[in-house]
Amino acid sequence: MAYDAIETPFGKREKIVGGSAVYVAYAASNFVKPVNLVSIIGNDFEGSEISALEQKGVSFEGVERVKDKKSFFWSGRYHLDMNTRDTLVTDLNVLADFNPVIPESFQDSEFLMLGNLHPATQISVIGQMKTRPRLIAMDTMNYWISSAPEDLKTVLAMVDVLMVNDSEARELTHEFSLVKAARTIIEMGPKFLIIKKGEHGALLFHKNQVFFAPALPLEEVFDPTGAGDTFAGGFVGHLARTKDISFENMKTAIIVGSAMASFCVEKFGPERLKEITKTEIDDRIRQFIDLVNFDIALV
Amino acid sequence: MAYDAIETPFGKREKIVGGSAVYVAYAASNFVKPVNLVSIIGNDFEGSEISALEQKGVSFEGVERVKDKKSFFWSGRYHLDMNTRDTLVTDLNVLADFNPVIPESFQDSEFLMLGNLHPATQISVIGQMKTRPRLIAMDTMNYWISSAPEDLKTVLAMVDVLMVNDSEARELTHEFSLVKAARTIIEMGPKFLIIKKGEHGALLFHKNQVFFAPALPLEEVFDPTGAGDTFAGGFVGHLARTKDISFENMKTAIIVGSAMASFCVEKFGPERLKEITKTEIDDRIRQFIDLVNFDIALV
Repeated sequence: MAYDAIETPFGKREKIVGGSAVYVAYAASNFVKPVNLVSIIGNDFEGSEISALEQKGVSFEGVERVKDKKSFFWSGRYHLDMNTRDTLVTDLNVLADFNPVIPESFQDSEFLMLGNLHPATQISVIGQMKTRPRLIAMDTMNYWISSAPEDLKTVLAMVDVLMVNDSEARELTHEFSLVKAARTIIEMGPKFLIIKKGEHGALLFHKNQVFFAPALPLEEVFDPTGAGDTFAGGFVGHLARTKDISFENMKTAIIVGSAMASFCVEKFGPERLKEITKTEIDDRIRQFIDLVNFDIALV
Repeated sequence: MAYDAIETPFGKREKIVGGSAVYVAYAASNFVKPVNLVSIIGNDFEGSEISALEQKGVSFEGVERVKDKKSFFWSGRYHLDMNTRDTLVTDLNVLADFNPVIPESFQDSEFLMLGNLHPATQISVIGQMKTRPRLIAMDTMNYWISSAPEDLKTVLAMVDVLMVNDSEARELTHEFSLVKAARTIIEMGPKFLIIKKGEHGALLFHKNQVFFAPALPLEEVFDPTGAGDTFAGGFVGHLARTKDISFENMKTAIIVGSAMASFCVEKFGPERLKEITKTEIDDRIRQFIDLVNFDIALV
């Protein structure tokens, strides 16, 4: 959980709530309640942001509140193509001493989504769960691939679903072909692999099967911040609602995640996610069906 | 029609048959016969290449044979990522004086595919058709967008389908968003617009509708030469076979085109297209169905 300063070609926000956990929670809360959040915030985190999430069914019992420090802060500026960005400021603040503690009331969680933190932190969270969740999904990034490769290998062997983007998949495996990279990653442990390609959609790999979900072609991407985490929240939220972790249902979950991500980029930070309605989500999912549906008769 | 010298990270060919018309003809010949070819070749064009195409049902009546000149020659080298290439040699040879003449026996052609040549040449071909074909599709490239913009505007107003890649769509409209670019291009004339994104698939725009077809995730792209033309040949071939030019059937045609293109890149030049079977095409189309098919129940 964080505050961000974001600048895109369309404008800027000096201070807007953000962080993986916020995006995942907002997205997932449309499908399942409660969403049990484990994170850390500082003395600057506004009560109104907490209430907004709580009203969506998000539990803060696992969120540590530090009185004498500020929340994690990130500042970035997007380039014109919106696919690349420069990080201007990263202030760890409370995140420097984050040791997540899973509350007793969270022990029955069946679906665990591990945000992008040090793999040792991800391992600690899995270790605290007395009963292994039915599904453990995780995100990671280039920084951990290069700085903590051994811990990363350990956690990869403990999870069911890995979500990475295409450049991370290539860096993790030293394979340029995403098909070859996927095979290598699945040998490392995750039974399911999602490779996100931003505006070019996402691939789901499982055994020798592959599924592709496009991103919705949009007139404008206003602010891509949090789109990947929103995708993750929609994906895990759908699985948690349906309690079905088959490959077939994961295809649907990827469409749901893609639909949620397509909302996220329409406004700054999580602004669009805060106001979204069930009708809008259903309409958006129908747009995805129209986007890829075709009839074919082999002759 | 041409000879190419191609170098990819996987090897090279000093002299291999190529050119848009060859790829379009090979691809389309799997779906419709005859394929009426209008092109020009020099004294170096081998009889065995002509027979190979004729056996596939391709008519050479519209192919001019020049005795004292060589065929068009292109030489290129692909970079490691296969998405970019350097052109090493372009020898126009016979193509410098190409003035296509439509034979009387081709006048009843219902489907016309205009390869990537000067828009004035494309206009000349349309003008020679005594009855307007039911569907006219065309390709173009950045070179004509910058060097012959007025002729290009004229031909765009005469055709039904434009096929371009994403960078060409952006250059033609000065719009970065492909959705905005598509709207602008459709205002220029073509009722249908296909934007090809290489390994990231293709988009079909028509009125306010959009359809997306992915590229098949491949272990290796061996040689991308001709993939776009092969896509075009499969697309128009399917439409000509079914004689149905509705948006719904164009979706299917894009899947057929994508399937054909996925074969093309498996070997050098058109080598793979020469050997392809009906069973292989059907299997490949089934892979596309599996790749994008999902079930969803809105709740």
